[in-house]
Amino acid sequence: MIGRRLVNGVEGGTISADDRGLQYGDGLFETMAALNGKVRRLDMHLARLAEGCHRLRMPMPSSDQIESDCARVLEGLGSAVVKLVVTRGPGPRSYMPPAQPTLTRIVVSTAQQVSEVESGRPLNVRICETRLGRNPRLAGIKHINRLEQVLAGAELREPLVDEGLMRSTDDRLVCATAANLFMVHAGRLLTPQISDCGVSGVMRESVLRLAAQLGLEVEIGDFTLADLERADEFFLTNAVRGIRPVGHVEGLKTFVPGPMIARLREALETR
Amino acid sequence: MIGRRLVNGVEGGTISADDRGLQYGDGLFETMAALNGKVRRLDMHLARLAEGCHRLRMPMPSSDQIESDCARVLEGLGSAVVKLVVTRGPGPRSYMPPAQPTLTRIVVSTAQQVSEVESGRPLNVRICETRLGRNPRLAGIKHINRLEQVLAGAELREPLVDEGLMRSTDDRLVCATAANLFMVHAGRLLTPQISDCGVSGVMRESVLRLAAQLGLEVEIGDFTLADLERADEFFLTNAVRGIRPVGHVEGLKTFVPGPMIARLREALETR
Repeated sequence: MIGRRLVNGVEGGTISADDRGLQYGDGLFETMAALNGKVRRLDMHLARLAEGCHRLRMPMPSSDQIESDCARVLEGLGSAVVKLVVTRGPGPRSYMPPAQPTLTRIVVSTAQQVSEVESGRPLNVRICETRLGRNPRLAGIKHINRLEQVLAGAELREPLVDEGLMRSTDDRLVCATAANLFMVHAGRLLTPQISDCGVSGVMRESVLRLAAQLGLEVEIGDFTLADLERADEFFLTNAVRGIRPVGHVEGLKTFVPGPMIARLREALETR
Repeated sequence: MIGRRLVNGVEGGTISADDRGLQYGDGLFETMAALNGKVRRLDMHLARLAEGCHRLRMPMPSSDQIESDCARVLEGLGSAVVKLVVTRGPGPRSYMPPAQPTLTRIVVSTAQQVSEVESGRPLNVRICETRLGRNPRLAGIKHINRLEQVLAGAELREPLVDEGLMRSTDDRLVCATAANLFMVHAGRLLTPQISDCGVSGVMRESVLRLAAQLGLEVEIGDFTLADLERADEFFLTNAVRGIRPVGHVEGLKTFVPGPMIARLREALETR
């Protein structure tokens, strides 16, 4: 795998065993697409990171440092995925965060074809048994406490399963393990609200902005598998893969990508 | 601070930035008391770790290796705290766990006076605003997704606050940030069930075993702050500090340690 890794700006750096990211999952991350050596939608990723820092009462690392790290790990790479991890850094054994933390900043690039409108076959997705616990204080932000996604990911081992849908403990359909979701009902765009679980994805936000620009009718609310069963089109979004149509939800329904997906992908491609 | 640290049995070892413990909080830990160079209740800690590995579908590390690591970090120390962290180890960027993970094992000792019946003043505790989200799949085990405890810990900065009580999102009183809790109602011992959030503490289990041996009436169930307000005695338990009486719950009630606490501490000391 081709790529580079910086820890606090140092190539080949390692992490101290007492890093709070490792001890408690006390940190945040962003997974970003880069094209032609430049991170796409970096401002939106930094905005979500800032919101995460605010919620975790952690200082925001310098955007200049992050941008400079990104430029360095992307040197010589055209298309790549860049993952940024920011933790509250090393500390003594105590849940209570240090008053003056020394953040740990990890930036890793992986050379990879990236397209927000890739032309692969529609996805085959599974409905995961693992649920999302609900806690408004941790919802929306991209923190490192991801055991629910890990357990859901373990349900997707078969090679023909592309992603897994996740429901909250109170049976709402919320997201996929590493993507947000959108349904189309009679020309209207529906997506779950991210109020007590799930992540507010950068591509979700981009699609909502596009929808507003296109004058589409949008409903952000609470939905269930029954709503998915009634949908005309169904697609997933994430920052690296863009808009991906779903072709089949195991045990529930087969979808054919329709005019809404085509319209949004076209609009996304031209912006 | 006096102590030693082993990473996969190597002194001074560091962690790879792609360790899943750091990337996703994909791991487990145990915090243990050691007296005279020996870990107390090691069998119970290993049993909880095994349950955690089973739930996270992770192989259990060798108990012999853990015991040998513990003995090494305790060399030359009398009384100490030993923290063990086991993660699913390094892996590529994906929630889906590797089919054959190479676990990371961290064992750290800190020289510290340890007493399960320490004679300090009764604790002053605060009721935290941060709630515990509910997910039965993650309840009871001591995994690394501890952001709720970190946020609750941030509420306890004043030096006179010893611990914080945590409620579930549905208003049940569940635990303290780093301890389980017991109330006494008219001679009966009450403790919250750990079914959808919270950790099943080793000292909680020890107290429940003692209570059974002493023929005490015990209720494991769902309780609220109203139940705490009606309690005659109130104490916290954890593996390092043992049984600690609470003297004051801010804004709720003042307690005086009574006969039940004395009886349990005496029984704990003699076993």
